[in-house]
Amino acid sequence: MSQERLIIDGLQYSNWSREIFEQMREGGVDAVHATLVYHENIRETLLRMGEWKRRFEAHGDLIMPVREAADIQRARQAGKVGIFFGAQNCSPIEDDIDMVALMRDLGLLIMQLTYNNQSLLACGCYESDDSGITRFGRQVIREMNRVGMIIDMSHSAERSTLEAVEFSEQPVIISHANPSFFRDAKRNKSNRVLEAIAESGGLLGFSAYPFHLKNGPDCSLEDYCDMIARTADLMGIEHLAIGTDLCQGQPTSVLEWMRNGRWSRDMDYGEGSQHNAGWPEPLAWLRDNRDFPNLIDGLRRRGFDEASIDRIMGQNWLALLKNAAVPAPREAAA
Amino acid sequence: MSQERLIIDGLQYSNWSREIFEQMREGGVDAVHATLVYHENIRETLLRMGEWKRRFEAHGDLIMPVREAADIQRARQAGKVGIFFGAQNCSPIEDDIDMVALMRDLGLLIMQLTYNNQSLLACGCYESDDSGITRFGRQVIREMNRVGMIIDMSHSAERSTLEAVEFSEQPVIISHANPSFFRDAKRNKSNRVLEAIAESGGLLGFSAYPFHLKNGPDCSLEDYCDMIARTADLMGIEHLAIGTDLCQGQPTSVLEWMRNGRWSRDMDYGEGSQHNAGWPEPLAWLRDNRDFPNLIDGLRRRGFDEASIDRIMGQNWLALLKNAAVPAPREAAA
Repeated sequence: MSQERLIIDGLQYSNWSREIFEQMREGGVDAVHATLVYHENIRETLLRMGEWKRRFEAHGDLIMPVREAADIQRARQAGKVGIFFGAQNCSPIEDDIDMVALMRDLGLLIMQLTYNNQSLLACGCYESDDSGITRFGRQVIREMNRVGMIIDMSHSAERSTLEAVEFSEQPVIISHANPSFFRDAKRNKSNRVLEAIAESGGLLGFSAYPFHLKNGPDCSLEDYCDMIARTADLMGIEHLAIGTDLCQGQPTSVLEWMRNGRWSRDMDYGEGSQHNAGWPEPLAWLRDNRDFPNLIDGLRRRGFDEASIDRIMGQNWLALLKNAAVPAPREAAA
Repeated sequence: MSQERLIIDGLQYSNWSREIFEQMREGGVDAVHATLVYHENIRETLLRMGEWKRRFEAHGDLIMPVREAADIQRARQAGKVGIFFGAQNCSPIEDDIDMVALMRDLGLLIMQLTYNNQSLLACGCYESDDSGITRFGRQVIREMNRVGMIIDMSHSAERSTLEAVEFSEQPVIISHANPSFFRDAKRNKSNRVLEAIAESGGLLGFSAYPFHLKNGPDCSLEDYCDMIARTADLMGIEHLAIGTDLCQGQPTSVLEWMRNGRWSRDMDYGEGSQHNAGWPEPLAWLRDNRDFPNLIDGLRRRGFDEASIDRIMGQNWLALLKNAAVPAPREAAA
């Protein structure tokens, strides 16, 4: 499979292990957007990068780092899985505009402007009101454009997302979420947002996280592929991708870190609740990386042609990285 | 003078020196709310605290730290100037709710929820739109109430200020600003905000920073005292105080730090402009701490009685610290 069709998963945050990397290869996965941090600050982000350095050394036969789109082809040729990094919050730059370029130098290709809460840059989808991109946020968008760091609004609120598209000269993405028409959840996106993302040249990575799905963990592959087909009508096939949000083998403490960071003295249950506080059950047809062929079969049965499946499963992600994860021409020439 | 009337200045940020501490005593100043930080993060805030430790050692004959209201009386009896600390931004807690109690333990009695920009807690007065107190902000307000750290909204936007008053169970203050009716500036406050501050039991410290004044550096003492009289009609005499915003002997680099922090690649001129980029000229009648008697004379000439002058010049600040810079009863008993 991996010799024929490029597969890129646009969001995973697992308890990384050799077993998981082997499963990626088994499932034909060529590259994964790995979440580096949720709320980690500069120092802690460097810790996470250090841990990945050691993983690339220990498992160099299975994985390699992706610093530009061409590295994905190189990984493929070497029979390895390319790993590219993204941050789910802007905590890796703290309050410092200069950190954007430094983090990009260290291989951070993608950054969300917010997690669920208000950040220094923009508003998250869990706040009651959204005043859009902040003064600092405008500067950071310009700087991300300049150095070639992709803007991800997966956890952002509506107005902030629309303004990010307005202010950015580069594509803006939603690496992992679903349309609100499929399930009305704070994390899912309105048609208006999805259209704006498409107009920006960005992409939507469809999430397989049960809280973002119709019928939750019981969501059928048929319903999931039908959602993709309806979204293709809205956004165009060239703006669709996969961002499974697979979080394998993580303890509950990681879920609590995602949801609470350091900002709350009370337990915040995020998309869950006090009586449903743990990780959701995985989907029967996407238990782990070995199940990507199921998804391809589902798309085929739903009537997608092979060229469209190529795009959704990986080519759109590859094109985005080629276009947007590069420094602006003026900077590249400097 | 200092033996008779208590004088507390509710905001200064000078290039601290023995000369300035001597001028405080000469002017009859008993205590000063000293800005500890503008945008300093946790580590940098500890640096500033360390510098102050050394100042208290080097100039122990002139100054002493204030950790509770009673320390101001103690300083007075010892013939020293009491120094109490405030932060002009919430950067000393970064993204961590637990830092509120720790910073309070270290003597941070006052914290602004924002400087001019959006913070993780609330919106600053330079943003174009204000969505109010954030999820993290609500937690921090509750925590500040719990540990007895005073909420200062001097640089915050209107809605955030009104919501801070709504959510806080303790008084909310504006340590240094003026009414918009005196000069319409982003940093000055509407009647609605001033009334809310008064209702909360808080206070307004009148600023002598020229950008907040009618006629800027040429503002007359008469106009200034007339502003105070008009504000007394609005807020009540028990909610008025002084917060001069004296910034003596600071280089332009400090002004640039105040205005730009680390968030901008372009120079932001704040209340100034490209052609007026430096510190404003000081007022002729309030050049430094030695001129506080001028202000008292001005208030007297404007018709304030001695009891009212006592309140404005220091007693209201003292009462506020007694009431609000203490842990909540439940905590104090624990």
